[in-house]
Amino acid sequence: MTAREVGLPAEVPAEGLPESVTIWEVGPRDGLQNEQAVVPVEVKLELIDRLAGAGLTTIEATSFVHPRWVPQLADAEALLAGLTRRDGVRYPVLVPNERGLDRALAAGVTHIAIFASATETFARRNLNRSLDEQFAMFEPVVGRAVAEGLDVRGYVSMCFGDPWEGRVDPSAVVDVGRRLLDMGCSQLSLGDTIGVATPGQVDALIDAFTAAGTPVSALAVHFHDTYGQALANTLAALRRGVSTVDSSAGGLGGCPYAESATGNLATEDLVWMLDGLGVSTGVDLDALATASAWLADTLGRPSPSRVVRALRG
Amino acid sequence: MTAREVGLPAEVPAEGLPESVTIWEVGPRDGLQNEQAVVPVEVKLELIDRLAGAGLTTIEATSFVHPRWVPQLADAEALLAGLTRRDGVRYPVLVPNERGLDRALAAGVTHIAIFASATETFARRNLNRSLDEQFAMFEPVVGRAVAEGLDVRGYVSMCFGDPWEGRVDPSAVVDVGRRLLDMGCSQLSLGDTIGVATPGQVDALIDAFTAAGTPVSALAVHFHDTYGQALANTLAALRRGVSTVDSSAGGLGGCPYAESATGNLATEDLVWMLDGLGVSTGVDLDALATASAWLADTLGRPSPSRVVRALRG
Repeated sequence: MTAREVGLPAEVPAEGLPESVTIWEVGPRDGLQNEQAVVPVEVKLELIDRLAGAGLTTIEATSFVHPRWVPQLADAEALLAGLTRRDGVRYPVLVPNERGLDRALAAGVTHIAIFASATETFARRNLNRSLDEQFAMFEPVVGRAVAEGLDVRGYVSMCFGDPWEGRVDPSAVVDVGRRLLDMGCSQLSLGDTIGVATPGQVDALIDAFTAAGTPVSALAVHFHDTYGQALANTLAALRRGVSTVDSSAGGLGGCPYAESATGNLATEDLVWMLDGLGVSTGVDLDALATASAWLADTLGRPSPSRVVRALRG
Repeated sequence: MTAREVGLPAEVPAEGLPESVTIWEVGPRDGLQNEQAVVPVEVKLELIDRLAGAGLTTIEATSFVHPRWVPQLADAEALLAGLTRRDGVRYPVLVPNERGLDRALAAGVTHIAIFASATETFARRNLNRSLDEQFAMFEPVVGRAVAEGLDVRGYVSMCFGDPWEGRVDPSAVVDVGRRLLDMGCSQLSLGDTIGVATPGQVDALIDAFTAAGTPVSALAVHFHDTYGQALANTLAALRRGVSTVDSSAGGLGGCPYAESATGNLATEDLVWMLDGLGVSTGVDLDALATASAWLADTLGRPSPSRVVRALRG
């Protein structure tokens, strides 16, 4: 018998959690952009459709970053042209600059995301800009996007630790996040890009945002599992009222700066916990694990998700 | 720069946690008993000494189960004879029956553990006994051990889910656990043997024990990471006041009934979280990860611990 055949996980709610959680699925973008080989657009389209079929309602589809930097996503236009959009599903795309926004608008995108840094060092390494210069870059992107009626999410990376600066102060993250909200972002995704956070840091950062007047409904969390902490940190965030959680089907992807192969929190491991807690997600765990197992077979290597490995061998 | 060189994890306490946690290290017993190949006694002795050197104060050393069932630990006498006992370190051993107790007493052991089932089906499959028969088997073991001045821990397996019965009712676990305490066990280790629990179940089981009059100080938790839930469940248990946590250096071992290679919570991943939370353990994370990396090299395969892989490549 498998655990699923005997009705596991058992549903036993815990106090102080949201009734439902929106999972922001990043696998097709954040996952596949870190693959060594370029995945064919047909495979990406089938993955996205399988994920939507499993009940995910927010699927980050691709990125309009310059193909020189991320050749894995050079097929962004072809992918969006080939996408069968389902009712009730959002397909946001990452947009790094005004040229990317032009491409997104031409492709008929309605939801975009920008990718900012909480730290000076990572801004310089990843964007080749100072912190102030990153805002100067994003301001016209967000301004034009909002004027065109687009919804804009702001990723904030290195919110808990940075590989060069070490510990990151919550007030620095709040400053960056609030500037993005003031620009017109509707939501922040607080990223533990190198996976070093622990639950007390999560509490402290969310408290710092709410003390500064940011409603918790404007906050999402994005944890990496590099040090095995992602799901414990997610639990802490849920207890603080966060109800949007980023994860990656099958645990695909992560940060190329991290020192190990482990990256994003696996959507299946998250759904296992939320199903157990009776927190509604709309996701069918078995259909999701089947999609990830199919992708792992297609990519020719095992899924990093523990649930996928346990259920699918 | 590595995360450790820049002072990570950052220490940020969270409310409602114990000031210190005792880690009950099970790697040398629960980990190595699940190895395909028999590990030489010299390697086991070096592992145990390295773990003690890293600051672990409770190291489950071996088992007096019959060598026919667990040939990997057939060297229990040789191991205990070769052990350099350090001040302040306990080296408990697993004892399945009276014959095992005789061997433990002859070897001069001071701390033993017995391994009971919370479910009828697992009792029959693992012990070839009914639930009532398991108590009849353990009663003289615990009685004689306590009369000889030994400390006895009671493992309770399948506390949250069972691969044949599915969900396990907390009241059934409390009944089994209280019978073990009444027999003379000083502590229960509540095991999620197949790794299916979620945090609401953890809260409910600990609450059921405290409602029945068992102090939380008599409870330890033992989570498996088969579905990626172990650390989130540990966090839930800590918030309920549990201050003894079982884990395995490098994530060694687990349950042979589980459907994947992932098993015990890795001690390093636990220590990362506790260090970040400012919960004292006495363990030096770098020395511990070095010990686990050494053992992984010796066994010829990578450590399942995410911290070990991230820090040691």
